[in-house]
Amino acid sequence: MIHAIIMAGGSGTRFWPLSRARNPKQFLSIITQNTLLEETILRLRPLIQAEQTWIVGNAAHKSALEKLHHLVPKDQILYEPLGRNTAACIGWAAVQILKKDPDAVMVVLPSDHFISPVAPFRKLIAKAATLAKKTQGLFTIGIRPTFPHVGYGYIEVQSRDNGPEKVLDFHEKPSLNLAESYIQTGRFFWNSGMFIWTAEKIMAMFRQYLPDHAQILDKIAALPTKSSKLKALYEKFENISIDYGIMEKAIEETYLLAATFEWSDIGSWAALEHFLPQDKQGNAIRGHCIAIDSTNNVVFSEHRKVALVDVKDMVVVDTPDAILVMPKSSDQKIKTLVQQLPLLLQ
Amino acid sequence: MIHAIIMAGGSGTRFWPLSRARNPKQFLSIITQNTLLEETILRLRPLIQAEQTWIVGNAAHKSALEKLHHLVPKDQILYEPLGRNTAACIGWAAVQILKKDPDAVMVVLPSDHFISPVAPFRKLIAKAATLAKKTQGLFTIGIRPTFPHVGYGYIEVQSRDNGPEKVLDFHEKPSLNLAESYIQTGRFFWNSGMFIWTAEKIMAMFRQYLPDHAQILDKIAALPTKSSKLKALYEKFENISIDYGIMEKAIEETYLLAATFEWSDIGSWAALEHFLPQDKQGNAIRGHCIAIDSTNNVVFSEHRKVALVDVKDMVVVDTPDAILVMPKSSDQKIKTLVQQLPLLLQ
Repeated sequence: MIHAIIMAGGSGTRFWPLSRARNPKQFLSIITQNTLLEETILRLRPLIQAEQTWIVGNAAHKSALEKLHHLVPKDQILYEPLGRNTAACIGWAAVQILKKDPDAVMVVLPSDHFISPVAPFRKLIAKAATLAKKTQGLFTIGIRPTFPHVGYGYIEVQSRDNGPEKVLDFHEKPSLNLAESYIQTGRFFWNSGMFIWTAEKIMAMFRQYLPDHAQILDKIAALPTKSSKLKALYEKFENISIDYGIMEKAIEETYLLAATFEWSDIGSWAALEHFLPQDKQGNAIRGHCIAIDSTNNVVFSEHRKVALVDVKDMVVVDTPDAILVMPKSSDQKIKTLVQQLPLLLQ
Repeated sequence: MIHAIIMAGGSGTRFWPLSRARNPKQFLSIITQNTLLEETILRLRPLIQAEQTWIVGNAAHKSALEKLHHLVPKDQILYEPLGRNTAACIGWAAVQILKKDPDAVMVVLPSDHFISPVAPFRKLIAKAATLAKKTQGLFTIGIRPTFPHVGYGYIEVQSRDNGPEKVLDFHEKPSLNLAESYIQTGRFFWNSGMFIWTAEKIMAMFRQYLPDHAQILDKIAALPTKSSKLKALYEKFENISIDYGIMEKAIEETYLLAATFEWSDIGSWAALEHFLPQDKQGNAIRGHCIAIDSTNNVVFSEHRKVALVDVKDMVVVDTPDAILVMPKSSDQKIKTLVQQLPLLLQ
């Protein structure tokens, strides 16, 4: 069977004041009435049903995760006692899934991205799963770049085709010049963080490339899910991503499929302008806004009326206890802002 | 005795969303914890005590006005059934005061201005009252202009002295060029709307220059304050200001005293920057604000935290049901904005 492993342990400040330390982006209803995490679960159906859906989250977000019991079986929500990057997260899911389904194909997905339309997405996932099963290769979904984004990692493949293409290299976030040169080749894709492989294969990779991880995972597999010994074992994991720890080393067995759908990591308030309904002046609005001589703003206010007069290219966000006003171009500074806030508001 | 007549019938939109049709500027606590109307009452003490304090307000603001019973005797709050400009308002107060104190000196004051410090203000009012009693002249307080403001009326006098100076003319709001030429003379003052005269004298002026007003006032004087006949009589008043109706005609008997204190009509959110505490970046803040690389903003938020990032020269106002964001320079557009709002928010 195909199992989805949704990595929901992320924390972040980029959607402050809507997101908070206890309620990060994946738990927000930013685009639809569902949270991004719920959308991630639901867009896989009917290809992957509840019984094959797994979430690896952070124990600090337990109350938000427990609200998903209607979508995911209780014992398939794994609460990491602490964050140890994607290798540990994926490894833990793999050993749990193997106990239930030794022939499982794993579809590893971030929990907070935008994907549309969903039919071609599911079709591509199904195709990758079939290939993973058949070839025992490691598959990743690449996004064909639309502009030289410097905030994404890039995956280099052999040809411009949609694949499956043999992966030549993983590249870290580039400079603008480098990103531009990447794009010109047509052989560089954005790394979406979506991976497809069999559970058996990824465990073999752990044993080969991250043997310390494999050893800890064997011990964890022998514990009940909620064992008090989990934390002590988890702390021993090296903090390393699956990209560095396995994919780059197993590059000879790694293949890319080009996305056949629109994708975004919705990385900032400014990015939301592509996803929220716009008025005639190009204001992207969620909630209640009246805009006088105001253009190209992003306004998020679900409770109060926001009135803009002569405001251009700004972000205005209203929440019950905090308001953010900034130019769209400044959204990289939110981190600095949040660090200066009283803990209660972070 | 000296009686204060505070004209509190104004309505306005310039402080939206804090001010609303039912709660205009004079009822707002903008600068101190008191409302502007309360400050107007209190800054006269001990020169003018509660027993000599009168408010003429709008019946539509009854609930706000009734909160002032601890500061002003109940029967000295006069509720106008409709607005008929300052002549009617002052005339009504005059006939009521005359019933109580035939020798009254009236100090007529707007309800929503800023004045500081208060000791020289009271001293000047006392001086004007003494002069009004002694000479039976009409006195006004002029503000020495600090810049060519085009939003105020100007009063022209004979010399540059502090007065009392004989008034030569009242001038309407000028063009910028005209305002500049006014200022250069040193003989033009801003019209503050503060007047001092005896009640007997102003009634004589009504009889001479606004005889129709005088006739209606005689009928109103014969009624109990809360008579059901008040409205029908009030509707007959010509809608005319005391400036046009009496002062300009009685100019031979009119004198100006120059203010010896700081004054502002606090005409807009932007004007507030002079009255609110400022942070090191020149942000004038009432309430809770964190400003990152943000300068010279006006922030008014008594309940929520307002976070600004890279925001300059803007006004941000937070209220329980509405938020305003605009450049300081756009505050003349609030009227347009408010007209487009749902009635509930106006």
